[in-house]
Amino acid sequence: MKENGHPTLSERALLFPDNPIRGLEELAIQTRAKGVEVIPLNIGSPDTTTPEVVLSAIKQFVDKSVNIGYGPSSGDSELIKKRSFFYKDRLNIDISPKNILITQGASEALELAIFSVANPGDEIIVIEPFFPNYKAIAEKFNVGLRGVTTRIEDGFHVIKAGESREESLKRIDEAVNSRTKAILWSSPSNPTGAVYGKSELELLYTIANKHNLFLIADEVYRLLIFNEGVKSNGVVRSPSIFDIVPQSDRARVIGIDSSSKEISFCGGRIGYLIVDESLSPTILKNASIRACPAILSQEAVKEIVNVTPDYFSGNQEELKKRRDFLHQELSNMKNLGVSVSSNPPEGAFYIIVDLGKQISAEKFCKWLLTDFTEENGSNETVLLTPMRMNTGGFYLDKNTGTSQIRIAYVRKMDELVKGIDILKLALEIYLKKEVS
Amino acid sequence: MKENGHPTLSERALLFPDNPIRGLEELAIQTRAKGVEVIPLNIGSPDTTTPEVVLSAIKQFVDKSVNIGYGPSSGDSELIKKRSFFYKDRLNIDISPKNILITQGASEALELAIFSVANPGDEIIVIEPFFPNYKAIAEKFNVGLRGVTTRIEDGFHVIKAGESREESLKRIDEAVNSRTKAILWSSPSNPTGAVYGKSELELLYTIANKHNLFLIADEVYRLLIFNEGVKSNGVVRSPSIFDIVPQSDRARVIGIDSSSKEISFCGGRIGYLIVDESLSPTILKNASIRACPAILSQEAVKEIVNVTPDYFSGNQEELKKRRDFLHQELSNMKNLGVSVSSNPPEGAFYIIVDLGKQISAEKFCKWLLTDFTEENGSNETVLLTPMRMNTGGFYLDKNTGTSQIRIAYVRKMDELVKGIDILKLALEIYLKKEVS
Repeated sequence: MKENGHPTLSERALLFPDNPIRGLEELAIQTRAKGVEVIPLNIGSPDTTTPEVVLSAIKQFVDKSVNIGYGPSSGDSELIKKRSFFYKDRLNIDISPKNILITQGASEALELAIFSVANPGDEIIVIEPFFPNYKAIAEKFNVGLRGVTTRIEDGFHVIKAGESREESLKRIDEAVNSRTKAILWSSPSNPTGAVYGKSELELLYTIANKHNLFLIADEVYRLLIFNEGVKSNGVVRSPSIFDIVPQSDRARVIGIDSSSKEISFCGGRIGYLIVDESLSPTILKNASIRACPAILSQEAVKEIVNVTPDYFSGNQEELKKRRDFLHQELSNMKNLGVSVSSNPPEGAFYIIVDLGKQISAEKFCKWLLTDFTEENGSNETVLLTPMRMNTGGFYLDKNTGTSQIRIAYVRKMDELVKGIDILKLALEIYLKKEVS
Repeated sequence: MKENGHPTLSERALLFPDNPIRGLEELAIQTRAKGVEVIPLNIGSPDTTTPEVVLSAIKQFVDKSVNIGYGPSSGDSELIKKRSFFYKDRLNIDISPKNILITQGASEALELAIFSVANPGDEIIVIEPFFPNYKAIAEKFNVGLRGVTTRIEDGFHVIKAGESREESLKRIDEAVNSRTKAILWSSPSNPTGAVYGKSELELLYTIANKHNLFLIADEVYRLLIFNEGVKSNGVVRSPSIFDIVPQSDRARVIGIDSSSKEISFCGGRIGYLIVDESLSPTILKNASIRACPAILSQEAVKEIVNVTPDYFSGNQEELKKRRDFLHQELSNMKNLGVSVSSNPPEGAFYIIVDLGKQISAEKFCKWLLTDFTEENGSNETVLLTPMRMNTGGFYLDKNTGTSQIRIAYVRKMDELVKGIDILKLALEIYLKKEVS
């Protein structure tokens, strides 16, 4: 019945999209193996410190444990209560314990959300450019995405510069069809750093309400913002979809959250899925496959309630300095064909750079790892994220954003200074090569 | 276009199978809230100790960390090397580092395996009764399962008592069709405790080879066996599919492994996917969605190389005592309509009990939590796993195994003694009720 030899993987596995954020890491390992220093500005793993109370909690838990057993699939009930307290008391966001499921990072929360709102063939509207995992997860579960594209010249905002509310509404409305089940976005945005204002969130809510859609709001960068925001108990955060949608309509809101960026705990893999209590028993059946989220990490993130406001403001100050530096430097690189949005991004720790239409960002980012140091005689280079890599990318259309890169400012200022110098030199060399 | 009100979840989410292992936990919480002691013999979270070197490694890692960042999607390279060393040096199983992906528990390894070998509509042959997550994962990815049923009277072995190799081959062969992509089983088996001998593993390999199928071997209970096994460097383990399949044909073998049961680290959520290096780059794209396995847990399980053989033999001795006690006691309960296999299970820490055809195990297990203590005037009961619960179960046919329960002997002897006493008394009361 079957051919000889070994069996082959499924088509859906073979066609799985590439990950542009992690796709060059293997190449970077090879480059480092040659003795080259590679500054990693590709992945959003911040260098800021995890609060001491969080780290100490792990050791205290280990000291009183004879073994590390399973916990509830929904997450530790004490953690759920503390997280709700953190939302209400620190962030002034009214989310009750019964609306919180602890997940294996925001990644799992996203997988659960997309699987649970859409059947195969259904569609989700996504604001693009988007976090590439949105597309990978949608493909994994055979869900279509339809993009509402934001532009560098609008600072990647949903409402374009000079556009009326009516015009925005009409434009986004056109993406809705009979298969549409939800609108998905991140704010503060990965990859653009845009922080959507209340008027933008209201716009998305208006459309969801009109067409009876879910709103899937990825707010994992909520505490990394640099301009004005919502202040509560000494903490400044970005506007949240939970500020906008009234309690009576909360059943359409699905929140995606994480402790990765807020306390520099990416490797802990703790996220949060915020859902109406009428939906959580159903979603929990799916989540129960993986037994429970990592227990040691759950113990750690309970301590979020003991992290003081100055920790969050300190991170904001540090990242703001880096952002200002990068935005200024990149704005001054127009002579190299580089463009960035005119205003600096308002949050997260990413900035999108367009290298100029004639440049393939993927080829350039690879060249930085393979040839740049040899051509240049130096032993330093940078690892950047091309916005398109083979079958994966930050845009649905494979020809959009091919000249763009995402820079993550997750390294200290001296490394960023070095990184910018390398980028300038590299572009100079590369442009000459391309022309000749 | 859509009805008013709130949006509804997808059909696939609403139809997600129940989890019979965790399905009664909510009820048990309510029972405990009434002041009743509930002995948990439902879930495979062992009470044995995690080795001290493993726990210490976590604290040492925390002490030298300023934050907890992401790691490689494939897992920490040092852990991969150590795991390979553990396989080769301790277990005499030849698995090279390039064949190991670290996963978020065996659960994720199973999800990756099933997604990667089968397209929607394809089939996987599964030896039943099986771990219910096999079915849940298959449904999640729209893969069909076809069962090869084992029976209590054969000790749940693949080769039936008195059956010739030819007869076994023919019987299993009948389950293969043009959509079949793999054979999936666990040995030592969850839920039966059966440990497949080399002749059984060879049988499965013969069929896979004949029809060019993948073999997905879940060996997470490999170190929990009580009879003879494969000895290497002072460690006794169950026969492995990797003992059977020659290196030249390893591309069809996918191993599922975990640190949960071997070192009592269920809550750490560390598993292993063993695959041919020609397949791992493809599978890794899918795994990269979740960034990386939990970092703290990865640090801990590196220490498996420093766990001494007496730790594993100590666990085996302790579990063997419990198994012998339970099997003896249950064998003596024939007067209550109870049957177990004539020989005690050879591994894992489960035993299947048939309560007699007229009893619904699901109703009985629920009754133990809701009414038993009140009817009996005591304040103690047990939490057991019915082999069928609503839409979820250990068998594909919803009418098979409805009178069976799985008992996990993951509690100390005094609790097991109490548990058996409760079971006897409960059955006496329940049988009278059913008759009257």
